[in-house]
Amino acid sequence: MQQGVLRAPVQGVPQARDFALIDAPRPQCPEGGVVVRLSHVSMDPYVGARLRGRHMGEAAPEPMTQAIPGHGVGVVIESRCAIAEGAYVHLMEAGWRELAPALDAEVRVIEPGGLSPSVFLSSLGMPGLTAWAGMTQLARVRKGDCVLVDAAAGAVGGAAGQIARAQGAARVIGIAGGPQKAALVRDTYGFDACIDYRTDGWKDELAGALSGGLDVHFENVSSEILTLALTHMNPYGRAVLCGLAAHYHDDQSAPGVPFGLIIGKRASLHGLVVYDFYDRWDAFLAKCRPLVETGALVIAEDAADGLAAAPEAFERLMTGRNLGKALVKL
Amino acid sequence: MQQGVLRAPVQGVPQARDFALIDAPRPQCPEGGVVVRLSHVSMDPYVGARLRGRHMGEAAPEPMTQAIPGHGVGVVIESRCAIAEGAYVHLMEAGWRELAPALDAEVRVIEPGGLSPSVFLSSLGMPGLTAWAGMTQLARVRKGDCVLVDAAAGAVGGAAGQIARAQGAARVIGIAGGPQKAALVRDTYGFDACIDYRTDGWKDELAGALSGGLDVHFENVSSEILTLALTHMNPYGRAVLCGLAAHYHDDQSAPGVPFGLIIGKRASLHGLVVYDFYDRWDAFLAKCRPLVETGALVIAEDAADGLAAAPEAFERLMTGRNLGKALVKL
Repeated sequence: MQQGVLRAPVQGVPQARDFALIDAPRPQCPEGGVVVRLSHVSMDPYVGARLRGRHMGEAAPEPMTQAIPGHGVGVVIESRCAIAEGAYVHLMEAGWRELAPALDAEVRVIEPGGLSPSVFLSSLGMPGLTAWAGMTQLARVRKGDCVLVDAAAGAVGGAAGQIARAQGAARVIGIAGGPQKAALVRDTYGFDACIDYRTDGWKDELAGALSGGLDVHFENVSSEILTLALTHMNPYGRAVLCGLAAHYHDDQSAPGVPFGLIIGKRASLHGLVVYDFYDRWDAFLAKCRPLVETGALVIAEDAADGLAAAPEAFERLMTGRNLGKALVKL
Repeated sequence: MQQGVLRAPVQGVPQARDFALIDAPRPQCPEGGVVVRLSHVSMDPYVGARLRGRHMGEAAPEPMTQAIPGHGVGVVIESRCAIAEGAYVHLMEAGWRELAPALDAEVRVIEPGGLSPSVFLSSLGMPGLTAWAGMTQLARVRKGDCVLVDAAAGAVGGAAGQIARAQGAARVIGIAGGPQKAALVRDTYGFDACIDYRTDGWKDELAGALSGGLDVHFENVSSEILTLALTHMNPYGRAVLCGLAAHYHDDQSAPGVPFGLIIGKRASLHGLVVYDFYDRWDAFLAKCRPLVETGALVIAEDAADGLAAAPEAFERLMTGRNLGKALVKL
């Protein structure tokens, strides 16, 4: 089978030329596990850090040997456990390869029904779980709230805004980079407004959009934007700190969050790590699957067609040129 | 009557020589209000900022004219409202003076019972309310929690630790400056340990005291200590951001709180402004008065005897040389 790997250890931001496709042996089915024929593999920003061994202490993949990591979905083609052949499953350690072995405990059976299995990598996958955790478990969005989300064209940000709306938010404002992304956020994701931070005067535009005061902010990008959001916050506003996309490739730490501003706004800040919410997956699906099925929660897909197209697509993700959830369709 | 005033506008940290005592006319009793003979006036760190017009936008007192601000307690000696003469009251705008006029809505009737009225300036006053709000309304200390408090010898810090204990905290650790304060915190306030940050190796000592992990931190001093507390925090720990005593006299902003550390610890940070909790005063008293009456909540008093001693006592407060709640006994 084919498998995508690193050519050599990477130092900086991974580029298309850092990857290679190799032939790999067909995986054996482990006792108590399955072999999955992957239909879709997710490409996520954190993998850029992981490829350099800088994500949650996980080692970088061995060059020319181990598949580039990524969540995936696919069909069980061989089973030595209770999961039936033909079942659809989601697995964390899928990777850039055609076939993936996994233990029973490492896969979650999914039921696509009328949905594309790829949905379980975006709105009903890890990005959706992240957004749901932030908006319903930490910031607890309430009816009437004004909500701000940055990186709003991304799968997490897009889902966060739409889930906030489903929770009863009165206003949902996005921040994104470039006119195409801003249009996606407004027209497809249904935000009330989306500010393009690459335009002059965007901070004034943001101030105008938030003139009624901000109640909840979901931060994916930087402490500079978090600080800006705090300045517009109503007393007792809540902020979810989910990611620092602007600093993924920095070797310096991000600037700090102003202490006096947190007190002055009586704000609550909540750090979010999605792994902690795996055990609430059923509650997440119960809330969000109906939203997806009725079209209230939509995430665009930016799909590379086949493993050969994956390196170029990953480079586009690393430079923010993807439009919607980045994945590889096999 | 006598009244304490500023000699002239102050620029830096107020010193004893910045104050003067003057004779002032006996106040008139306002329609719908009272005249109070003050028995005790509170001296609080924030007044140092207010004297320079740097607290919550409130103007500095007019030199040689307006009393130095401070909360107070005393007895009603004249009334033109429903409050009876002879009643004990707490009032926010008492000030360094013998008699204070106030409207009905500006005073709160207190019932000292067997307690000194001065208790209503410390454990059952604003400092106690601040500590109660942080520990029970924001950080929500639970049975078994490990709790850290800095400026632990102060009225807010001392009450915060003791209220945390009453909430069921398993370990209560303090940070204070100097051996006398550390001893007060351990021996009188009953903390399990108190680290003297003026000794070498105090950070190692703190790490040892928190080796089981920190659940709740109450920050009164600086973002440097908050950052240190966060490094010892268990996942989903909570921090209350109450004050920045180390920066009261700075003209620079305090350094920020590290964003990545908040995420890594899945921490929740809560800004606290005590004014927001006035309307929960009865709930606070219901919880804390029994603790005071049974001796489970004790705050030492550092009382200046008479207005003439107030300037020196205020300078000691500004330089952290007070031991316990600073107040003036009239």
